[in-house]
Amino acid sequence: MAGARPLRIGLVGCGFMGRTHSNAYRQVNQFFDCEYHPELKAVCGRDRERTEQFARRWGYQHAETDWDVLVKRDDVDVIDIASPNDTHAGIAIAAAKAGKIVLCEKPLARNLVEALRMVAAAEDAGVPNMVWYNYRRVPAVTLAKQIIEDGNLGRVFHYRAKFLQDWTISRDIPVGGRALWRLDRDLAGSGVTGDLLAHCIDTAIWLNGPIAHVSAMTETFVKERESAVTGHAVEVSIDDASAFLARFENGSLGTFEATRFARGHKALYTFEVNGEKGSLAWDLHDLHRLRYFEYEEASELRGWRSIHVTEPEHPYMKSWWVPGLQIGYEHTFIHQAADLLIALSAGQMPSPAFREALATERVIDAVLQSAALMKWVAVV
Amino acid sequence: MAGARPLRIGLVGCGFMGRTHSNAYRQVNQFFDCEYHPELKAVCGRDRERTEQFARRWGYQHAETDWDVLVKRDDVDVIDIASPNDTHAGIAIAAAKAGKIVLCEKPLARNLVEALRMVAAAEDAGVPNMVWYNYRRVPAVTLAKQIIEDGNLGRVFHYRAKFLQDWTISRDIPVGGRALWRLDRDLAGSGVTGDLLAHCIDTAIWLNGPIAHVSAMTETFVKERESAVTGHAVEVSIDDASAFLARFENGSLGTFEATRFARGHKALYTFEVNGEKGSLAWDLHDLHRLRYFEYEEASELRGWRSIHVTEPEHPYMKSWWVPGLQIGYEHTFIHQAADLLIALSAGQMPSPAFREALATERVIDAVLQSAALMKWVAVV
Amino acid sequence: MAGARPLRIGLVGCGFMGRTHSNAYRQVNQFFDCEYHPELKAVCGRDRERTEQFARRWGYQHAETDWDVLVKRDDVDVIDIASPNDTHAGIAIAAAKAGKIVLCEKPLARNLVEALRMVAAAEDAGVPNMVWYNYRRVPAVTLAKQIIEDGNLGRVFHYRAKFLQDWTISRDIPVGGRALWRLDRDLAGSGVTGDLLAHCIDTAIWLNGPIAHVSAMTETFVKERESAVTGHAVEVSIDDASAFLARFENGSLGTFEATRFARGHKALYTFEVNGEKGSLAWDLHDLHRLRYFEYEEASELRGWRSIHVTEPEHPYMKSWWVPGLQIGYEHTFIHQAADLLIALSAGQMPSPAFREALATERVIDAVLQSAALMKWVAVV
Amino acid sequence: MAGARPLRIGLVGCGFMGRTHSNAYRQVNQFFDCEYHPELKAVCGRDRERTEQFARRWGYQHAETDWDVLVKRDDVDVIDIASPNDTHAGIAIAAAKAGKIVLCEKPLARNLVEALRMVAAAEDAGVPNMVWYNYRRVPAVTLAKQIIEDGNLGRVFHYRAKFLQDWTISRDIPVGGRALWRLDRDLAGSGVTGDLLAHCIDTAIWLNGPIAHVSAMTETFVKERESAVTGHAVEVSIDDASAFLARFENGSLGTFEATRFARGHKALYTFEVNGEKGSLAWDLHDLHRLRYFEYEEASELRGWRSIHVTEPEHPYMKSWWVPGLQIGYEHTFIHQAADLLIALSAGQMPSPAFREALATERVIDAVLQSAALMKWVAVV
Repeated sequence: MAGARPLRIGLVGCGFMGRTHSNAYRQVNQFFDCEYHPELKAVCGRDRERTEQFARRWGYQHAETDWDVLVKRDDVDVIDIASPNDTHAGIAIAAAKAGKIVLCEKPLARNLVEALRMVAAAEDAGVPNMVWYNYRRVPAVTLAKQIIEDGNLGRVFHYRAKFLQDWTISRDIPVGGRALWRLDRDLAGSGVTGDLLAHCIDTAIWLNGPIAHVSAMTETFVKERESAVTGHAVEVSIDDASAFLARFENGSLGTFEATRFARGHKALYTFEVNGEKGSLAWDLHDLHRLRYFEYEEASELRGWRSIHVTEPEHPYMKSWWVPGLQIGYEHTFIHQAADLLIALSAGQMPSPAFREALATERVIDAVLQSAALMKWVAVV
Repeated sequence: MAGARPLRIGLVGCGFMGRTHSNAYRQVNQFFDCEYHPELKAVCGRDRERTEQFARRWGYQHAETDWDVLVKRDDVDVIDIASPNDTHAGIAIAAAKAGKIVLCEKPLARNLVEALRMVAAAEDAGVPNMVWYNYRRVPAVTLAKQIIEDGNLGRVFHYRAKFLQDWTISRDIPVGGRALWRLDRDLAGSGVTGDLLAHCIDTAIWLNGPIAHVSAMTETFVKERESAVTGHAVEVSIDDASAFLARFENGSLGTFEATRFARGHKALYTFEVNGEKGSLAWDLHDLHRLRYFEYEEASELRGWRSIHVTEPEHPYMKSWWVPGLQIGYEHTFIHQAADLLIALSAGQMPSPAFREALATERVIDAVLQSAALMKWVAVV
Repeated sequence: MAGARPLRIGLVGCGFMGRTHSNAYRQVNQFFDCEYHPELKAVCGRDRERTEQFARRWGYQHAETDWDVLVKRDDVDVIDIASPNDTHAGIAIAAAKAGKIVLCEKPLARNLVEALRMVAAAEDAGVPNMVWYNYRRVPAVTLAKQIIEDGNLGRVFHYRAKFLQDWTISRDIPVGGRALWRLDRDLAGSGVTGDLLAHCIDTAIWLNGPIAHVSAMTETFVKERESAVTGHAVEVSIDDASAFLARFENGSLGTFEATRFARGHKALYTFEVNGEKGSLAWDLHDLHRLRYFEYEEASELRGWRSIHVTEPEHPYMKSWWVPGLQIGYEHTFIHQAADLLIALSAGQMPSPAFREALATERVIDAVLQSAALMKWVAVV
Repeated sequence: MAGARPLRIGLVGCGFMGRTHSNAYRQVNQFFDCEYHPELKAVCGRDRERTEQFARRWGYQHAETDWDVLVKRDDVDVIDIASPNDTHAGIAIAAAKAGKIVLCEKPLARNLVEALRMVAAAEDAGVPNMVWYNYRRVPAVTLAKQIIEDGNLGRVFHYRAKFLQDWTISRDIPVGGRALWRLDRDLAGSGVTGDLLAHCIDTAIWLNGPIAHVSAMTETFVKERESAVTGHAVEVSIDDASAFLARFENGSLGTFEATRFARGHKALYTFEVNGEKGSLAWDLHDLHRLRYFEYEEASELRGWRSIHVTEPEHPYMKSWWVPGLQIGYEHTFIHQAADLLIALSAGQMPSPAFREALATERVIDAVLQSAALMKWVAVV
């Protein structure tokens, strides 16, 4: 478009998240008016053939197999990290030092130490930085944020969230290697705590403020699996399930749970907030709806209202189709990309920045400690 | 209770409806403060042993096998007709002539001619009379009535109702006899039209006013069944399914459907009303909820609201338990019994009276005519 | 009915639970074939006028104001305790000593010490005894029990339950006295833990076996209220909210929560069980439905199934109406009454007996300890 | 991609449908492996500036303002008609004569005469042709088709469909002109009958076979509106609501309804099919779910099952994300584009071809006739 300003992307990772980010870059300018237009400059993956295939499919001009080379390319403005968790810190720190805009898939890092180093590197370099907590950009979730900020819930008493999956119940699923890195603690940092609870925690802090104390338990239901690398039986190192009680700084109580062993649920991320004046509930399986209970209504007509978040007055929705027509999962990344482009144009830090995402890392760290020590732990 | 005034009931019929009415009489005074207290004086059925068993179970003091004898008993104030449709007119007319209060299970009669005679008899005799259209007394349905009367919907554009069952799909179900009289036109008058659509029509007229014209179709999917009486194959005389388009006098459009061939639905009576300012929806399978859409709300927070009709401010509900605890099907009869007792105390006609129920008979008649003639028919 | 054998009831308590029990006694024989027929002999309450009114309404032959007198009546077979928790132990022990059948509303007692004494008294006296954990007799919950016992879930990984209400959010609600005894620890023993979590725990143990360890938190959101007795401000002694993590003996993880501060929920008791081969979910707000996910189905047709628990083949339901017609809350007490009568006829201990209910008291005790000590506690 | 074969698109129309088609062309090759790759060659609109803007945003190489010029371009393989209904016939016939592949947004034409001419032109020219009945490609709807074809429903008794919107209730909405052509019969052919019922009819015929007879009614609730062209009050020529009874050739009964006056519904397209062995239900507001009732299951465990159509074994879904993550409205066009490209590669006619879509036009024609004549009409 006339006046379009290119933003040259260097992506690391050709997996699930590499796809969602690439798709967001390809679509954002058809639906949102942004000065910046992403230009898919180069993608980096371990396997040359697979990476080149990915580049062709998504329209990247170059394929790299060494992220160090990618980071040093002069024709790249952004390093976007969509590779396994064990690579986040190294790439992010190098990219920041190279003066690149640094974007990183969640969770920020495998552990708090790495996360702190990444925040320091990004802030020392003074580069824009962002973590892809995409679920903040589900229109219904953004609407929940607005409702809370408008004071519609009043004093909050309860926050509860869970993220339920069922894909690792079978004992025949092997562990480790690049494809199944999520089941290997060396690569992932933790199991469902960093993978799924991280989303729950990020949204919770965003909507309800800091978490002060936690008491957690974790469990590994299948203790031994075949290694996808060696073929031998290995002890499973990650948590299959994780749950915790929380006390928020605002005095409300929280309950959180994530698991990959909840038969029948695929990606059931849900949250509910109960306040003095109203309540909100949402779930990812029907992401286009927000349930809202407003206490002030005429008493005999009160009820939980299902807001069908598809109207032009709803967040992000006027850019899409017509009322009643739902959007899907990948749109959340497109929305975050749009917000990123707008922030960059305005010279503002995109959100959530590394430092903001650090709050979630602190809670994750406290949860894992609490589960290991079997006691309440303060979030530092 | 001190000051309780007995209302001596003579019930005809020991079947499904005999049970619901008896249960209502037994329970009404524990939950509603009424001057009148039903006294279960006598029940009448065809089979002596079965009738005596019924009397013992429900606490009737006497068992009769001839309704004519029952009608003439001096110790009975009310004749309540819960026997098959072919008996309604004869009993009701005799009871009215005998000066009894006459109550009749719906539909009023097998056809319009009988219904007109019943209305005339009741009005000539000047006795209180009522038809058991119990679904008006579902608290959520009564609340719907209030919402409409308060003008919350504005001009109505659409009314749609259906009543779906699946219990006659099997070809092995026989037809006729006292147990399966609902499948025999001589006994029932019609099939689903009088049995199920009657409820839909009664509520529709109550909520949305008179129906002016209809275009209908009916179908008998299983054309031949074994007679429960003779054991021989007989042609099935009733409609298994019935649907019609309607124009209401207020200018709104109606669609109606009833069937016993909708696999998976047991008693799914649903209605929805769409008005300029709001809409309402309800279904019998979750009878304690009313769905309400209010257009005037702040636009980004609009949504279909599920009103959990269990609060003391909701119709009938302060007499039951505590908020959140649902009531069931039979409570609708208890509510109608309470309203009956209150009306009798006040010297008012209970509702719906025979004359009011006649409106439904007129529509049923027009529907059956329209289906037979395959043309639009005006409701007389 | 011919051969009916009277079971003479002496009820203590004219409140909410006095009504549900009385209603159960009045209705059970119309719907279930039982040798025993409850005879409402006497009811006991503190206030003579109110108790006599209750007696008239429900058909009790006598009204007492001293439970000690009631317990000693020769014409009473059963002492049924439906009065506040602080009275349970004294009455139950006296009744057992008097050789009566002893029934007690839940929770069994205010604390574990009292509960142990009650169990000892009942067992020493050798009298039939039972606690009214009525939610086991919701047909959908009984069906859940059958599905689990049939092995349909396989190894269980997760159990989660909550009981959400919102009736004490207003600061204007006073505390204590006979009407609001649930807000006074001296009378109730605890707040939501004994009132609401008790139900969750009872069902959990019934469906998923013993709970071994818990980590809990409790909170009192409104710290000070007006005393309903003195009119002065008093410190609120009970827990407004209570949540805990649990490890079951079978290796599964549990999360539990109860509160009276969840705006928009009236009596939302829900549970979900996730097993290797299937999952189950239920909630009290739509008690006539059970949701079931079966993994073995053809994969592209798998889904959470909403079982409409209204068919004759479902527990208790053939005694009621026809398929599709829902029952309500009070029916759970009628079912428990029917099971009680059948057990007594068979000379079997009704269920749950005091000893069985003791397991719930042990968990409640551990939860309150854990919350006070802020550490994991083993259930003794 | 290596071996990619370009398919040069010439699009007519820059409105809502121009966007959905363009988006489909841009995305199809990232998600589906097809030999053909759409190349956005030229777009044609009435207004030069708006068309050029559209071309820049979506990546079209050329902008035209005369469809005749577009049709004659040598560098275009496909003419895709996404302009108002009054333009369909002229463009399609010219494009067919020019030997182009012809794609047309639904409904095929304003009336049956036009539709017949279009079918003749396309077939005479022997060019591939297709109508964008996109809802067939909702994965849940495609799954419904498979379930029916596998014989899982058995003999069908009932089919019911409706499409409810509420966007024209306000009297302030003007009529006509290019933006509001849907409210002008000269431009649109009809109101909701051709716009919304067309979808219901197409799916119905696809799933349940031909419709034989109809009895219809239509209504225009707001009789007069301001002309968007002249500013004067004009009589509204289209139907605001349309409903009909149908008899299918297979003996089943149908009820159909569409309206733009159903307050609270934005695009609630729903259908349900009831067969001897099972039933299916779906709605567009939650398009990623299919409800299925299977009769053969163990009787106490039967229930309506909510199939979450997001698994790799479900139609189209393995090309998208991971299980549990929903897709949106626009994906239906991407699916249809993928099927189009695959058909073209295979030398097969894409589906539905003009001739197939003609069946829907015949029903629309019968519905409008029936409503005008107030009698049953046979579908020719």
